[in-house]
Amino acid sequence: MRPSKRAADELRAVTLERGVSKHAEGSCLVKFGDTHVLCTASLEERVPPWLRGQNRGWVTAEYGMLPRSTGDRMRREASAGKQSGRTLEIQRLIGRSLRAVVDLKALGEKQITVDCDVIQADGGTRTAAITGSWVALHDCLAWMKARDMFAGEVLLDHVAAVSCGIHEGEAVLDLDYAEDSAAETDANFVITGKGGIVEIQATAEGVPFSEDEFQSLLGLARQGVARLIDLQKMSIL
Amino acid sequence: MRPSKRAADELRAVTLERGVSKHAEGSCLVKFGDTHVLCTASLEERVPPWLRGQNRGWVTAEYGMLPRSTGDRMRREASAGKQSGRTLEIQRLIGRSLRAVVDLKALGEKQITVDCDVIQADGGTRTAAITGSWVALHDCLAWMKARDMFAGEVLLDHVAAVSCGIHEGEAVLDLDYAEDSAAETDANFVITGKGGIVEIQATAEGVPFSEDEFQSLLGLARQGVARLIDLQKMSIL
Amino acid sequence: MRPSKRAADELRAVTLERGVSKHAEGSCLVKFGDTHVLCTASLEERVPPWLRGQNRGWVTAEYGMLPRSTGDRMRREASAGKQSGRTLEIQRLIGRSLRAVVDLKALGEKQITVDCDVIQADGGTRTAAITGSWVALHDCLAWMKARDMFAGEVLLDHVAAVSCGIHEGEAVLDLDYAEDSAAETDANFVITGKGGIVEIQATAEGVPFSEDEFQSLLGLARQGVARLIDLQKMSIL
Amino acid sequence: MRPSKRAADELRAVTLERGVSKHAEGSCLVKFGDTHVLCTASLEERVPPWLRGQNRGWVTAEYGMLPRSTGDRMRREASAGKQSGRTLEIQRLIGRSLRAVVDLKALGEKQITVDCDVIQADGGTRTAAITGSWVALHDCLAWMKARDMFAGEVLLDHVAAVSCGIHEGEAVLDLDYAEDSAAETDANFVITGKGGIVEIQATAEGVPFSEDEFQSLLGLARQGVARLIDLQKMSIL
Amino acid sequence: MRPSKRAADELRAVTLERGVSKHAEGSCLVKFGDTHVLCTASLEERVPPWLRGQNRGWVTAEYGMLPRSTGDRMRREASAGKQSGRTLEIQRLIGRSLRAVVDLKALGEKQITVDCDVIQADGGTRTAAITGSWVALHDCLAWMKARDMFAGEVLLDHVAAVSCGIHEGEAVLDLDYAEDSAAETDANFVITGKGGIVEIQATAEGVPFSEDEFQSLLGLARQGVARLIDLQKMSIL
Amino acid sequence: MRPSKRAADELRAVTLERGVSKHAEGSCLVKFGDTHVLCTASLEERVPPWLRGQNRGWVTAEYGMLPRSTGDRMRREASAGKQSGRTLEIQRLIGRSLRAVVDLKALGEKQITVDCDVIQADGGTRTAAITGSWVALHDCLAWMKARDMFAGEVLLDHVAAVSCGIHEGEAVLDLDYAEDSAAETDANFVITGKGGIVEIQATAEGVPFSEDEFQSLLGLARQGVARLIDLQKMSIL
Repeated sequence: MRPSKRAADELRAVTLERGVSKHAEGSCLVKFGDTHVLCTASLEERVPPWLRGQNRGWVTAEYGMLPRSTGDRMRREASAGKQSGRTLEIQRLIGRSLRAVVDLKALGEKQITVDCDVIQADGGTRTAAITGSWVALHDCLAWMKARDMFAGEVLLDHVAAVSCGIHEGEAVLDLDYAEDSAAETDANFVITGKGGIVEIQATAEGVPFSEDEFQSLLGLARQGVARLIDLQKMSIL
Repeated sequence: MRPSKRAADELRAVTLERGVSKHAEGSCLVKFGDTHVLCTASLEERVPPWLRGQNRGWVTAEYGMLPRSTGDRMRREASAGKQSGRTLEIQRLIGRSLRAVVDLKALGEKQITVDCDVIQADGGTRTAAITGSWVALHDCLAWMKARDMFAGEVLLDHVAAVSCGIHEGEAVLDLDYAEDSAAETDANFVITGKGGIVEIQATAEGVPFSEDEFQSLLGLARQGVARLIDLQKMSIL
Repeated sequence: MRPSKRAADELRAVTLERGVSKHAEGSCLVKFGDTHVLCTASLEERVPPWLRGQNRGWVTAEYGMLPRSTGDRMRREASAGKQSGRTLEIQRLIGRSLRAVVDLKALGEKQITVDCDVIQADGGTRTAAITGSWVALHDCLAWMKARDMFAGEVLLDHVAAVSCGIHEGEAVLDLDYAEDSAAETDANFVITGKGGIVEIQATAEGVPFSEDEFQSLLGLARQGVARLIDLQKMSIL
Repeated sequence: MRPSKRAADELRAVTLERGVSKHAEGSCLVKFGDTHVLCTASLEERVPPWLRGQNRGWVTAEYGMLPRSTGDRMRREASAGKQSGRTLEIQRLIGRSLRAVVDLKALGEKQITVDCDVIQADGGTRTAAITGSWVALHDCLAWMKARDMFAGEVLLDHVAAVSCGIHEGEAVLDLDYAEDSAAETDANFVITGKGGIVEIQATAEGVPFSEDEFQSLLGLARQGVARLIDLQKMSIL
Repeated sequence: MRPSKRAADELRAVTLERGVSKHAEGSCLVKFGDTHVLCTASLEERVPPWLRGQNRGWVTAEYGMLPRSTGDRMRREASAGKQSGRTLEIQRLIGRSLRAVVDLKALGEKQITVDCDVIQADGGTRTAAITGSWVALHDCLAWMKARDMFAGEVLLDHVAAVSCGIHEGEAVLDLDYAEDSAAETDANFVITGKGGIVEIQATAEGVPFSEDEFQSLLGLARQGVARLIDLQKMSIL
Repeated sequence: MRPSKRAADELRAVTLERGVSKHAEGSCLVKFGDTHVLCTASLEERVPPWLRGQNRGWVTAEYGMLPRSTGDRMRREASAGKQSGRTLEIQRLIGRSLRAVVDLKALGEKQITVDCDVIQADGGTRTAAITGSWVALHDCLAWMKARDMFAGEVLLDHVAAVSCGIHEGEAVLDLDYAEDSAAETDANFVITGKGGIVEIQATAEGVPFSEDEFQSLLGLARQGVARLIDLQKMSIL
């Protein structure tokens, strides 16, 4: 039995609430159980310096945690004066994941920045962030489309992410913090609506894992992402 | 007529929602109209170095804005590598305001940090933050009291804050962003339940203001804070 | 009796010495008793990026304390790698105060930076800095005028500042360090030659203050600033 | 045909040269073709603060690139004032990989820091660094063993790493820079001597990859790591 | 003829004014012509971490320039967030120069920090700073001696510094800014009362210099320092 | 007898290995005994902002030490977030030394950056770096010459550097770390092929040195540099 009492292949309760920001062109408050992440997509007319004049756009992400989103209060990164390696790693992952389903040429010379701010953390913040960011990005692009800011299709597919792990010898889906702390192996999968894999990050905490264990995790992730993408589809109806 | 269509002495719709954080010892989501600030109070067993061994506690605050809490996306302070002068000024004000109604000796050698994170901004974030922080602090102290972590009374009074300004020649209460941008004078008042003044910050934007104008602002602030403290009292029933 | 043996409404000995810098376009060494601040006004041909092309100028200020200007040596901010919240707060106040009496349109697309460096501190450094900065700014503008760098009037009025406080229950003017440390309430007032108020910052240290107490402080400040502006007038004869 | 003219499952020429540092307790200059990384293992008697008093040791890594190790000169991170997200990500990976084969309890309250400095880069610097770090760590532990600094076995297994990618539709092993730049998918595998998987990081550059493609990469990685571990064994004879 | 109209071996007007700080244990305002440096010596009871428990003291220095001490306003180092290489180099030089004439064992486990802040710059700020620092240090030690804070002699000798240069082919003493900018060679000499050399820094600006030229500079420096030390002696009478 | 058993005027074994970098336009691995420095010269088409449009080029240097190049591991400067004063001082010296033998006008509006990275340190890293940098610079200029990137001669002369010191009362050449730690005086000399002096830095560690001692050091340095320049000449044949 998992600490969360969920079945091995059961997601936490997932909700995707759109339009939660008065200011952002697109926004989504995503909840994976007690993990709550606010995703806002902001349109900017300028692209990074190295992309100027190439008639292509850019999609990027930033990630942060409120100091008391966690069990113990963490030091505020703005006060520490720098972002941690973990923060930088996660925001690079979110950006890559979104760009995998965007036609940057069709976007034109514009940048969309998706901010993912963790309001409350209970494991799986990066996978929730990717899943919710897609909705915020979708709405930002719809806002632009309504203003004829691009022609054709910019958003090529859905993308969502989920974590899996080996917990007390069993492969389980969508770990919460208690499960994650006790898991021997922790893996994050980013997969598209068509089933293409965008990113796999699997890490042994302590004992290395076997190929068979890995295949079980991948199988669970496929199911989990499929359900998350169904939820994305319902949320944007 | 004010842009907000409110009467000169009318507050925005104010709500104080307690217990919004799974982790924090006390928390409050405060809304002054479209200004939303999440306040969490975190208990720590250690005090700042300069206070050690004096058998007194400390209450401090930190303030931050989510990058897209504003109309245009702001640069993330964690990414910029430092907190702006405005941020530092506001968090110092919040801390001073709370300490004015706390008996630090009665608290004992512990620190409470109140994080005020602006989820959405529409003017008056610092006054909303002070008003909501009092509720989060109250609940953190109740949590400690229930665990016999101090004797006697730590929280001596209520404290709340409101802004006033001269807008098109008229003194008005609780400015939203549109009013604040157009105001000739902008003033923040921090006042206790017993009517003591903790802080006055009044600034001319452009043309200096007269003593009469200032007295009108002070009068409005007294009324506004009295109503905010009534709302605090109802919220903790 | 005040520790300084001054009457309640008595300023310290104030001097304003002009032309103390070989290089600066305007300069003033201001002394409020043992508080000595060197103010230099520097003309630059460029304005901040957000002001470019608007045919308006800018006046700004920077503030610093020499490490041993104080009783105990403070860490050098350049070595610490950042300016403290207090420093940022003070230099923003000085800049706002000066801009309240300057016609930025008449100045044209130029910037004047006033550096206020505390050579020796004994309380009231920010009010001395504002009072002396006005003289440095005046001389910088006279230097420009003599070179036909603008037409019309840029400097619209005098501006000066003074602190007041409640010390052992009595309202007193222009606190020195010993009085400031023991004061229950500390307030800074920035007032123009015509009597307009530019800024009020009043803070309770510990016990909140009453409205009556505040009115006494404001009355003292009016007298004090009037005398400081007389001294400014004499200094520029 | 690969740009490098190698067979799909062919490693670059790999050499592991031990004892290259006069000062370090263990060192290895590892070359994967034109990618050269200097790995030094340094013993320190103290552990990180959060591990003190637990009678366990720590193994960590730092990574850096010389400014002209690359085709275009990069800005020196010491001069930029911070390490990039990529640098932090890589050094965290190296540390995790080494700790997967170390018994930290047996090590006792000591820390070993492995510095991986890229002298020349031609793709695959992180996998070369992990492979060479194992040798440096081995020699550092042998140095300690010879001085009776621990009892039992600290080093439990070999660990090595290799990259694989899909290049022009074909799965290939150990990408050099030219291949890496053109690859559609880039994956890094960290695997132990016993065949346990420590880490998988697979990323789509542009188009997502299929599960079949991923399995081909994993197969190649197994072969490649097996050969790298044979080379480690020969190097420490 | 030198731009300054001085003879080749003529110092600028040099004054050493003691006791200029209300707070510092020792202080000196040194002027070499229009170069004015405020030197304050601060006693601290603690030594740097690497010196603790060795029963020896430490003398160190910090250097800074006010932003408008120079012809063009420089950026404030506290605002830039770091000290320049030039600043660090100069403060290390001042510290070494003072320590060359101090018996650190006799001082006991205390630290004296000499802050050298350039109020106005016209060339030779580092040599003026060293010369004035000696006086501030002397007075700090006299203050300590009067309080029986050490036994025996801590200050073993005088130390002073002067610059020399080759200007239009001629060796000249104590360059001001105009001469320094035009000099082909610039050299700084730190010499003690007994004639021992503490530091030589000679740099060719453009064309290398000959050994003969160097010997002329050294000769001038000897004369100049001898006169500076006479002035130190008179100042402490 | 010197700890190194060398004669007083004997250099360590010096080698200059060219072409050690696949990427750099010029490179040299210089060894002064156990001190090994990798020097790479990188050509960039742009010059520093303050030099733009003047039709002149620039030669600059950066210096770094690998963390375990020394007996005890040093903190990585990239991780500390800033370069030390020593690092900045050394890289400024290397840049000045190279520019003394370069015709910046003939170079045209281009910049050459020489990176000097200490792979292993045993005293004299700055003098080895200057000596090796000249070779890397020479080869970079030859590379440019072969591509007709400038006309005429850019490199006007050789330049090399050596340290000397007073060790147990005797003047000795080219100190290694053990000798340097024990030396009473430490001096670095940068001298050209024609015998012109570019830089002298002589520092007393503890007791000041006499003029006679200094002259002995200068004599040794002349011999040492002459031999180093012979080695440079042989290396570029």
